[in-house]
Amino acid sequence: MSDYINALLKKPIKRTPIWVMRQAGRYLPEYRATRAKSGGFMNLCKSPDLACEVTLQPIRRFDLDAAILFSDILTIPDAMGLGLYFVENEGPKFKKNINNIDDINQITSNVNDNLTYVFDAITNIKQELNNKFPLIGFSGSPWTLATYMIEGNSSKNFHKIKKMMFCNPEYLNLLLEKLSQAVFHYLNQQIISGVDSVMIFDTWGGLLAKQNYLDFSLNYMQKIVTKLKASHPNIPITLFSKNGGKHLTKIADTTCNCIGIDWTIDIEEAVQLVGNKVAIQGNLDPALLLTNPEIIEKEVIKILNQFKEKTGHIFNLGHGITPDANPENMQALIENVHKFGAK
Amino acid sequence: MSDYINALLKKPIKRTPIWVMRQAGRYLPEYRATRAKSGGFMNLCKSPDLACEVTLQPIRRFDLDAAILFSDILTIPDAMGLGLYFVENEGPKFKKNINNIDDINQITSNVNDNLTYVFDAITNIKQELNNKFPLIGFSGSPWTLATYMIEGNSSKNFHKIKKMMFCNPEYLNLLLEKLSQAVFHYLNQQIISGVDSVMIFDTWGGLLAKQNYLDFSLNYMQKIVTKLKASHPNIPITLFSKNGGKHLTKIADTTCNCIGIDWTIDIEEAVQLVGNKVAIQGNLDPALLLTNPEIIEKEVIKILNQFKEKTGHIFNLGHGITPDANPENMQALIENVHKFGAK
Repeated sequence: MSDYINALLKKPIKRTPIWVMRQAGRYLPEYRATRAKSGGFMNLCKSPDLACEVTLQPIRRFDLDAAILFSDILTIPDAMGLGLYFVENEGPKFKKNINNIDDINQITSNVNDNLTYVFDAITNIKQELNNKFPLIGFSGSPWTLATYMIEGNSSKNFHKIKKMMFCNPEYLNLLLEKLSQAVFHYLNQQIISGVDSVMIFDTWGGLLAKQNYLDFSLNYMQKIVTKLKASHPNIPITLFSKNGGKHLTKIADTTCNCIGIDWTIDIEEAVQLVGNKVAIQGNLDPALLLTNPEIIEKEVIKILNQFKEKTGHIFNLGHGITPDANPENMQALIENVHKFGAK
Repeated sequence: MSDYINALLKKPIKRTPIWVMRQAGRYLPEYRATRAKSGGFMNLCKSPDLACEVTLQPIRRFDLDAAILFSDILTIPDAMGLGLYFVENEGPKFKKNINNIDDINQITSNVNDNLTYVFDAITNIKQELNNKFPLIGFSGSPWTLATYMIEGNSSKNFHKIKKMMFCNPEYLNLLLEKLSQAVFHYLNQQIISGVDSVMIFDTWGGLLAKQNYLDFSLNYMQKIVTKLKASHPNIPITLFSKNGGKHLTKIADTTCNCIGIDWTIDIEEAVQLVGNKVAIQGNLDPALLLTNPEIIEKEVIKILNQFKEKTGHIFNLGHGITPDANPENMQALIENVHKFGAK
């Protein structure tokens, strides 16, 4: 078993594992070259061969401990017919938005038929990885998917979805219920196709008041965790609510295996909150990859020193690596984690 | 003494006071009318008569417990010569940015001579208020001012300032030291001109890791609090770090009188963290002003019920009121706070 999977399960490891959110991405020249030929980001996602190729690029270049499926968190709403597209420097957008109960009623949870490109990519990647590296599958959380579906893009203040949450919570609950079923089916099929662990990205749960977070974000992740644990008890699950440091004990209660944390909470404090219950993934500020190897070494050691146990830490950034990161700094990050991490 | 000042000092009150961040703003038709005639937002700020007029507009319309000086958090960098301007829907921008140590060396902390329009506005407003309402003065925090000065606009990932923080902390510290002196002189002169309390808005401190927040944001607010307390011991000071719920005990240690909180932490939990040490300002989600009076009543009662003490709560939103808020909902908010608040 790989160190990545062992760390998730809090079993003995040979060394602290590391992977990096968006490790297959624009900071890599080979990624930019493949993307330039692909005709755009969505083509890259939707071609199993190209998705496989870019998934493997960081694994070839760096001494990483896991590969993550190259895809987008918003494939499900796209498969539901909303028409996902990207405008340079503006983030994701949808051609159609969810505006009212009629729109929600028309949504179906059975979208795996429109996502075969993802499962095919997983098959290809697993074949190429040849069991030398574990593969991570993922999805956006129901709440996070709903924010993009209702707002139509990367929102500033999330007023449309919040208005629905406050004025028509039953509409939003219906949408989130449908999304949680879709995410379950999607991750379930990713597992059947071969991924070795799954992660749910809750990019926008952290902007909610506590009770709203519990009711509209964590509640639906809980449903997914419960169903996945019933169907695939041995597949580790990581939940990541950005800016969710204040909810860690509640997240740990879901029976997920691991909690992703961003840099706004110290790992030491996170461990105090969740104890021995779950593994922790994180949490270097991605902005550190704009500095230099000496500074990165110092900051990596700081984080490693905060995690006192022998296993249960998966090193990562606190959010995705950014296009302006220097690949040499990524190299330094990985080397330092392996040099100074648990052994 | 007004309920607002008494609540800040945790003295007995007649009723729970309320004011609202950006209460003089675009959600009000009378504000939009004045602004349309003014030739732009900065003209509104820089004309003592117009600033006075818009400061008073919400006080005339609603049963509010305090007025807040109409101004911008970025007047200091503008007075330092960076050239503040606004592009519709894009937030603040500067004509000149801070890029290196030479730029920082050229910055002077003595900028009150360029801010006389603010002090003149305060004189006018105090005269109009005629001691019937307390007047709140304010500034951006040194860290928040520095983010805009270095990034040049509302940043997405704050990479320029973070790079300076990690690679050249001595440069950033020099800038923040100059800014903290400028903010002190600015608030000091606001107090001399007549404001009854001051508030420091730290819009971006909450995006930092804990130690970075303490070193680069709170540390410089602390210096300002210490100096203001020495020169004006009776003027209450409110500190507001958006997304700063995780730092409340440290903020309370500054000897400020009040901590502003956003809606991502419950007041109940905030009180548990800071005990009897400081007053709490907050914390309704501004998105609730897009709903209706019934929902607002319910949410106001929820927040009021969380605050068990007799005094020390200043009701407010967790962030500024937004242009799409309905003035009738603002009215409902204020009425419900007075109807159900402490008496």
